[in-house]
Amino acid sequence: MRLQLRTWPEVEDYLKNSAGIIIPIGSTEQHGPTGFIGTDALCPELVATEIGQRQNVMVAPTLSIGMAQHHLGFSGSITLRPTTLISVVCDVVNSLRRHGFNRFFFLNGHGGNIATCEAAFSEIYAESSLGIAGQNQPSVRCHLENWWNSEAIKEISKREYGDAEGSHATPSEVSLTYFGYPEDGARVKRDELTPPVAPGGPIYDATDFRRRFADGRMGSDPTLSTPEVGQELFEASVRSVGQAYENFITAE
Amino acid sequence: MRLQLRTWPEVEDYLKNSAGIIIPIGSTEQHGPTGFIGTDALCPELVATEIGQRQNVMVAPTLSIGMAQHHLGFSGSITLRPTTLISVVCDVVNSLRRHGFNRFFFLNGHGGNIATCEAAFSEIYAESSLGIAGQNQPSVRCHLENWWNSEAIKEISKREYGDAEGSHATPSEVSLTYFGYPEDGARVKRDELTPPVAPGGPIYDATDFRRRFADGRMGSDPTLSTPEVGQELFEASVRSVGQAYENFITAE
Amino acid sequence: MRLQLRTWPEVEDYLKNSAGIIIPIGSTEQHGPTGFIGTDALCPELVATEIGQRQNVMVAPTLSIGMAQHHLGFSGSITLRPTTLISVVCDVVNSLRRHGFNRFFFLNGHGGNIATCEAAFSEIYAESSLGIAGQNQPSVRCHLENWWNSEAIKEISKREYGDAEGSHATPSEVSLTYFGYPEDGARVKRDELTPPVAPGGPIYDATDFRRRFADGRMGSDPTLSTPEVGQELFEASVRSVGQAYENFITAE
Amino acid sequence: MRLQLRTWPEVEDYLKNSAGIIIPIGSTEQHGPTGFIGTDALCPELVATEIGQRQNVMVAPTLSIGMAQHHLGFSGSITLRPTTLISVVCDVVNSLRRHGFNRFFFLNGHGGNIATCEAAFSEIYAESSLGIAGQNQPSVRCHLENWWNSEAIKEISKREYGDAEGSHATPSEVSLTYFGYPEDGARVKRDELTPPVAPGGPIYDATDFRRRFADGRMGSDPTLSTPEVGQELFEASVRSVGQAYENFITAE
Amino acid sequence: MRLQLRTWPEVEDYLKNSAGIIIPIGSTEQHGPTGFIGTDALCPELVATEIGQRQNVMVAPTLSIGMAQHHLGFSGSITLRPTTLISVVCDVVNSLRRHGFNRFFFLNGHGGNIATCEAAFSEIYAESSLGIAGQNQPSVRCHLENWWNSEAIKEISKREYGDAEGSHATPSEVSLTYFGYPEDGARVKRDELTPPVAPGGPIYDATDFRRRFADGRMGSDPTLSTPEVGQELFEASVRSVGQAYENFITAE
Amino acid sequence: MRLQLRTWPEVEDYLKNSAGIIIPIGSTEQHGPTGFIGTDALCPELVATEIGQRQNVMVAPTLSIGMAQHHLGFSGSITLRPTTLISVVCDVVNSLRRHGFNRFFFLNGHGGNIATCEAAFSEIYAESSLGIAGQNQPSVRCHLENWWNSEAIKEISKREYGDAEGSHATPSEVSLTYFGYPEDGARVKRDELTPPVAPGGPIYDATDFRRRFADGRMGSDPTLSTPEVGQELFEASVRSVGQAYENFITAE
Repeated sequence: MRLQLRTWPEVEDYLKNSAGIIIPIGSTEQHGPTGFIGTDALCPELVATEIGQRQNVMVAPTLSIGMAQHHLGFSGSITLRPTTLISVVCDVVNSLRRHGFNRFFFLNGHGGNIATCEAAFSEIYAESSLGIAGQNQPSVRCHLENWWNSEAIKEISKREYGDAEGSHATPSEVSLTYFGYPEDGARVKRDELTPPVAPGGPIYDATDFRRRFADGRMGSDPTLSTPEVGQELFEASVRSVGQAYENFITAE
Repeated sequence: MRLQLRTWPEVEDYLKNSAGIIIPIGSTEQHGPTGFIGTDALCPELVATEIGQRQNVMVAPTLSIGMAQHHLGFSGSITLRPTTLISVVCDVVNSLRRHGFNRFFFLNGHGGNIATCEAAFSEIYAESSLGIAGQNQPSVRCHLENWWNSEAIKEISKREYGDAEGSHATPSEVSLTYFGYPEDGARVKRDELTPPVAPGGPIYDATDFRRRFADGRMGSDPTLSTPEVGQELFEASVRSVGQAYENFITAE
Repeated sequence: MRLQLRTWPEVEDYLKNSAGIIIPIGSTEQHGPTGFIGTDALCPELVATEIGQRQNVMVAPTLSIGMAQHHLGFSGSITLRPTTLISVVCDVVNSLRRHGFNRFFFLNGHGGNIATCEAAFSEIYAESSLGIAGQNQPSVRCHLENWWNSEAIKEISKREYGDAEGSHATPSEVSLTYFGYPEDGARVKRDELTPPVAPGGPIYDATDFRRRFADGRMGSDPTLSTPEVGQELFEASVRSVGQAYENFITAE
Repeated sequence: MRLQLRTWPEVEDYLKNSAGIIIPIGSTEQHGPTGFIGTDALCPELVATEIGQRQNVMVAPTLSIGMAQHHLGFSGSITLRPTTLISVVCDVVNSLRRHGFNRFFFLNGHGGNIATCEAAFSEIYAESSLGIAGQNQPSVRCHLENWWNSEAIKEISKREYGDAEGSHATPSEVSLTYFGYPEDGARVKRDELTPPVAPGGPIYDATDFRRRFADGRMGSDPTLSTPEVGQELFEASVRSVGQAYENFITAE
Repeated sequence: MRLQLRTWPEVEDYLKNSAGIIIPIGSTEQHGPTGFIGTDALCPELVATEIGQRQNVMVAPTLSIGMAQHHLGFSGSITLRPTTLISVVCDVVNSLRRHGFNRFFFLNGHGGNIATCEAAFSEIYAESSLGIAGQNQPSVRCHLENWWNSEAIKEISKREYGDAEGSHATPSEVSLTYFGYPEDGARVKRDELTPPVAPGGPIYDATDFRRRFADGRMGSDPTLSTPEVGQELFEASVRSVGQAYENFITAE
Repeated sequence: MRLQLRTWPEVEDYLKNSAGIIIPIGSTEQHGPTGFIGTDALCPELVATEIGQRQNVMVAPTLSIGMAQHHLGFSGSITLRPTTLISVVCDVVNSLRRHGFNRFFFLNGHGGNIATCEAAFSEIYAESSLGIAGQNQPSVRCHLENWWNSEAIKEISKREYGDAEGSHATPSEVSLTYFGYPEDGARVKRDELTPPVAPGGPIYDATDFRRRFADGRMGSDPTLSTPEVGQELFEASVRSVGQAYENFITAE
């Protein structure tokens, strides 16, 4: 149930049975020489869309641009400043709460979004906690879930890629996008990268990042990516995230 | 050429020949009982994607949430406050200018975005004009184009719908989305609405809007929408917007 | 009835009969070699003051500084960033609504203000529509009217100046200020400018603007300006804007 | 030399000899039953205009709306929030510095503006001091002068009004406006108020203010105001402020 | 009674008898070659802590970083921009008002904080005065008191230091910190500085400040500082500020 | 080496050998019936001060107020909104970078600060990465370290408290403060709480928090706290954090 493809009376009906919604949130940033710039948005979008269909959950339009300042040294990367992203998350939640939604499940595809999203949730709660405006409004709960956050997924990644998984432009996330967009995947796939496994290290600003990570990868070998593993990861994520959503919605 | 499905080396190559990019911008807001909540984002996304393919233009991810405060009386509508949307547009442009993009063509699907986007462009230019930061950066140009902004499109709308076109939840925009999403269109289509043609009037806040426009339409009869007319509008828009993009890119 | 020259008990009396107010808004920006920097503020101020007297309407102090970033390449121009102007408009409206004003008629003298003012109105409405604070406050309506926005005025401009009217530093607006400030007009008037009619073109940042429009004019020949035509325009504007105000105040 | 009545070439000429400008700043707020709502803007405007003529100093348009939150309990009062006023002052200074102005002399008419203006000056300096943007721009100096800030003026007030001068809606400031606007002064003048001299006290929010100061006056008896004393104050202020401006401009 | 060393039930008990709190606010900025960078925070902290003990007043944690942009030319100085400090003060007051505190006594150690703190208080009151949020909350009062603001203190300073007191890095404030931190005082004390008494002058940005005041002092000779005079000042301040607090708390 | 007790020439000397600084950051929030409201600020302050002495590291004044919106249901708790805390962290770092500091080691005492601090770091980096201002300034690195973040500490906590450690108002943090402030600890200590071990659960806004956690504890039994265990934790933290600081400063 994509919110974008529903009418307002359909949403009104939905709200009679549920106050929950999934909001995919990603990023638009380089993912090495063989990964899509949209990887972090496409992954949660694919998973959320499937969960929306299987479990009759409303899915908001994907917030495709996230906090990616460190990738700006590579062409095509876009960032929102953290304070901008906080404003966006606040406005989205405050809009939907007016209609009766009160359980906001952000399905995230980008590690760099986590801190800012948690800060945004606190900004929303603070309005209520400070008694500024919230006393007029129903209480809300926000939750951030990463699509890769389950034991089942970690097992697949470990089994298939081991130490070549790395932490950015990983073969797992690239596989998932190749599964979702096989033609584009075939276009960009390469047989080898140099070095095969990219170095690791800390993250500071974009200039420092490019100096450390010459082609954008962090500790990974995404040439190992395949649509087949992508499909396996997709199924595992749909199951585990779908369960996490149910837990969130039904929690006391 | 969807930016999301490109790698950073591909974007780097693209920038050798062009500094232009199309950024679809829409809204997530009610479009009457038979229009999709995503209408204003889906329309420019459809048109931009096709232009991207035909003319080899880079197309950024759609900014699906716009300025729609007046629709918040209807379930599912989401707004960014104007100041939030200004921050988003600034961050997107300032990110991409770092890579060498300097012609930003926003393809818009929502009348309510126009003022705020123009204000955002001025905010970007003001940084340069005030000499605060812009002196370190190349000059940029931003342009907002509405997908329906051509004589050819207006002729089709007038011929097919006449006075029933209205100004919100119009049969033209609804037709375009039915063309793009025929199955969902078939689900929500109705044979009649009451009254057949919705009233018109000014726009203030959400409570006032709902009072004036009982089912969300403004002056329109979207039951006249068909995928066939949608396809005709789509082709006309792809041609006229495609030409407008070329004019923008090549202007002195 | 200038608000500045009234006492608070007089305003309290006024509010027993009317909840409307005219707020002149202009700009402080170059208007070519023969136009006053204050043109865009002086014009609506002159018209609003006269309407205030004739129709017993309260007139707020003129917001003399607007959004004029593109003129900063010419000495004396001042701009508010769009986000600053939005804050100003919000604060003015939110102050006056406390007293019972709820119909805000902004009489504008500068095309560059339009988008930002409309964005500001949406920012005000959004507070209410999002249910953050507005639920404690009466509903308000804002309207932006340009002083030149009537058929009668356009006819005078066309008859007197034809293609030499242009779009910035126009002989019409300059004439209106020469009518209002004849001595200063006599000081700055010139018999000719080179070229007689300035070029036209798009607007980006201040550096680009100065490159395109060497003396600040856009498509106009303001040497044609006279106090006599200014007076005619003044009378036409007072009538049409006065009527527009009445329509706004009495609208359902 | 009102900036509003000058052309940009005239300003360019002015800048060859001076980098100084006077910016009148006031407020739009109740001044008791017999004082104009515009008192605090009209006073510095009158004085600044005269100094501009006598000493050939450029005078910016008056910032007529200041920080007056405590007066919002009385009809007609308008405030900018302090953070908004800070943005306005920053934008005005940053605009004019681009042209070569670097000595900003704010002539103030409202005690409630002082703290916020000083904070705004620090905000401007902080940009430079933090090395964020200022390193690209010439150093600037801002100064706030109250029009009543001289021994000569205090002597007149003391001689004429003694303890009835008070601190808000004072007979001195009301006299100055009666001198400037005699017809309006005659309309609003009263022979007595009850009590003759208003109470004094601290300032908190608007509700508290109205509770303490029933008709808006603070410690004053403005029925003593006359145009004659106003003229005397005007002359004294023009002299002392004119001297203060020269001192500021020529200081090392 | 340091808030930091209390439990929440203890605070709840305290609120049964008092709604007042002392909030020390200082700065972290150079104080010449022999003054601590923390001088302006340490002084009010010492005084407030003692008052808290003697008079059973709750004392909040010290806001140690203030508005010190002009000192950034000297190593170790830290500033908050005025707009940041306003946000901090607003959040602190809005947090504590929720618990029932409504008398906020800021004990200040830095002249440069005064304007910004007063602006912050107005920002807090404006929320209430504009009717945005305050109508849901109890009325509050804020007061700024400088620790040196009494006749008794001025007499000691005059008697001990006369013209060598100056206005920054004064022997009085340095003495107070030597009293509080005698070992560190002994380490940094010097017998003479060149020139013995520093020059005076106005304050603009950090570069200008360093040019005028070569070693950071303004008009002072802090080599005269002693712990003994510091103790005398401490006692005088504890008495006068303690009384000022009582006056504030019990005022109508 | 407390920055507050140093002079600017001493800081200048320090910078010849090191560009690193420790910035303790905490919170002011309830810690159950037997924990100090300042626990989260006092703990990193104690540890940082000791490391500063042992390792000759400059220690900035403690940022004692953090992000604690969820605790506002308990008296005495204070929060900064996340956006305010971001501004504070940005200003502190941007101030110190001017002097030559470029390694910012935030020693944190509060889990609720982590996300917001990480967002603040990204906001700082984004300025540089977007090329707005950072190109004028040296590159900086920020790091957040929690005082409890070492195996040695976790072992002590596990050995002493096991499952009674919990996640808020833990016996470990309370012990550390009892070690630092033994007299106050003796005052507030209790023999038992009901229930002995508090419940666990998720964190949303303040009202929800108080409903879930009746006396403020989360999963802990802080009656087990002793100064002796506090001392052991203190020593372990000083060692592990001291090492982490060295690693950060010397990293490539």
